[in-house]
Amino acid sequence: MRALISRGNGLSLERDYPEPTPVHGEALIRVLQAGICNTDLEIIRGYMSFHGVLGHEFVGVVEVIYGAEPAQQYRHLLGKRVVGDINAACRRPDCYYCQRGIFSQCPRRTTLGIVNRDGAFADHVLLPVENLHLVPDNVSDEEAVFVEPLAANFEIMEQVHIRPTEWVVVLGDGKMGQLAARVLALSGCEVSMVGKHEEKLALVEQRGISTYRLEEAEQMVEEGTRRADIVVECTGSEQGLALALRLVRPRGTVVLKSTVADKSILHLAPIVVDEIRVQGSRCGPFEPALRALSQKLIDVQPLISARYPLDGGLEAFEHAQQRGILKVLMRL
Amino acid sequence: MRALISRGNGLSLERDYPEPTPVHGEALIRVLQAGICNTDLEIIRGYMSFHGVLGHEFVGVVEVIYGAEPAQQYRHLLGKRVVGDINAACRRPDCYYCQRGIFSQCPRRTTLGIVNRDGAFADHVLLPVENLHLVPDNVSDEEAVFVEPLAANFEIMEQVHIRPTEWVVVLGDGKMGQLAARVLALSGCEVSMVGKHEEKLALVEQRGISTYRLEEAEQMVEEGTRRADIVVECTGSEQGLALALRLVRPRGTVVLKSTVADKSILHLAPIVVDEIRVQGSRCGPFEPALRALSQKLIDVQPLISARYPLDGGLEAFEHAQQRGILKVLMRL
Repeated sequence: MRALISRGNGLSLERDYPEPTPVHGEALIRVLQAGICNTDLEIIRGYMSFHGVLGHEFVGVVEVIYGAEPAQQYRHLLGKRVVGDINAACRRPDCYYCQRGIFSQCPRRTTLGIVNRDGAFADHVLLPVENLHLVPDNVSDEEAVFVEPLAANFEIMEQVHIRPTEWVVVLGDGKMGQLAARVLALSGCEVSMVGKHEEKLALVEQRGISTYRLEEAEQMVEEGTRRADIVVECTGSEQGLALALRLVRPRGTVVLKSTVADKSILHLAPIVVDEIRVQGSRCGPFEPALRALSQKLIDVQPLISARYPLDGGLEAFEHAQQRGILKVLMRL
Repeated sequence: MRALISRGNGLSLERDYPEPTPVHGEALIRVLQAGICNTDLEIIRGYMSFHGVLGHEFVGVVEVIYGAEPAQQYRHLLGKRVVGDINAACRRPDCYYCQRGIFSQCPRRTTLGIVNRDGAFADHVLLPVENLHLVPDNVSDEEAVFVEPLAANFEIMEQVHIRPTEWVVVLGDGKMGQLAARVLALSGCEVSMVGKHEEKLALVEQRGISTYRLEEAEQMVEEGTRRADIVVECTGSEQGLALALRLVRPRGTVVLKSTVADKSILHLAPIVVDEIRVQGSRCGPFEPALRALSQKLIDVQPLISARYPLDGGLEAFEHAQQRGILKVLMRL
């Protein structure tokens, strides 16, 4: 089959990559569309030293379920459009996380297109049947590709109680920030975005989200005019975290959504004196994301910058790395 | 009066420092005993650029309450032993924190012996009457000096739900770590301490708290044998935070209790991938600390390394800075 492959770093399009090997309890999915995430861009620069098929944001159709019992139990999925949780957990009785339903933290997990599991930039992809979620008819293929990153932002609301009277500031106007602002606004709270790109800031302004240029935010911090209850760091830069810690109020929360920046110099004293909570946040629940799309509460169409066929995968990645570009989709 | 004074840094004993000026709603307290805290040691090295009388852990007797109405309302305090919350808040109707009862985060607060308010290493000290707590008869003066740092450790239980089935690791065997381990053990959870000093580790072992030498903890992390639900960082060192982040389990919590280390290089990706919560923690509630002492749930006597008269204050500070020394008290 065709597949976009990373071998530790870089990217290549292979046309005769082997079809997935059947695994009991897993489903063979024909990929319809898949999206390029910043993590993909990091992986081709060497992050995670991943070898295999890239891609973890996808929608596809279930073609086969392997194993008699799983095939029987999950037969309602056959021929249907699905999206899939990217973490395939061990689900063993002795696994602390699996026993608590926290599959995304299973220490023996594989992760689609990121850790020890071939991803979705290919004609076919495998995932355990338990990972799959039916896509409602009124959610388009393009919308469904956004379920995975939307879920990652609903995770913030799983972790942190966001009150409707609070002020939440999203740092970063990129793909993650755009989705974070839209999801968080559903809580009824006031959401603002801090960014560098006029055209990206304009996208959220249309949704009633106020925006600040980076310089304006710096000035606000300098003058101490207002401090946020919650700051969601989506820039992944050292400067982003530093700004977040200065922008948040005492006893407030800083949510870290990006794995991009690896090291940062952190001033610890302000975290202690102001009793700040710094909360790391990664993958999230798919069902709320599917509900929000189905109920047309979140409009992801304006975030699509380009569409490519899988055969144009290398160009798609080139495009995704350009300044000012948001989501690049691949259609199979 | 006599007072131990810092003028931005360093320390001096003055014998004719002016008596406190009466303030409406504040109480004049004759200090009985006061304890040296690591923050005091930092201040004389320049932290907070504090000018005034040092000292914020104390017990004393209320001699005068200024203002007719407060004197009437709080007359039950007159002549009684009290301890005092160190943060004097504005309590104005327009103050976000004061209106929520979070006086320790009032942006206009002064802090006893730390920010814009003379402290307790003196014959007399002033505090707002609302800050004072009666000391039960069965709590000794020496025990009462520990109320403030004990309260700071009860704050951890205010911030983080510690389940009786969890494993909590305290990093650091100094004054803060000793109290943290004793307070956290009250929750019913398993508490372990990681430290460098045999004699300090032995103190908590007597309380049924298991201990690890620093090298053993490093090895445990290396081998991945066990990871903690909650790690309480009481070393204030960069290495301490790094170890905490490697020792805590995915979705676990790292509590930062020390303002000593100002900067630290933090690896952000593990916080995000493992969804760690990093929680800054400072001052806490006095009543639980007084209850625990009154009910003899916490024995602080073994933590007292030395006792000095106020006239020997400079020697007391010298002593407190020596390796292996825990709490140094001053008796007035």
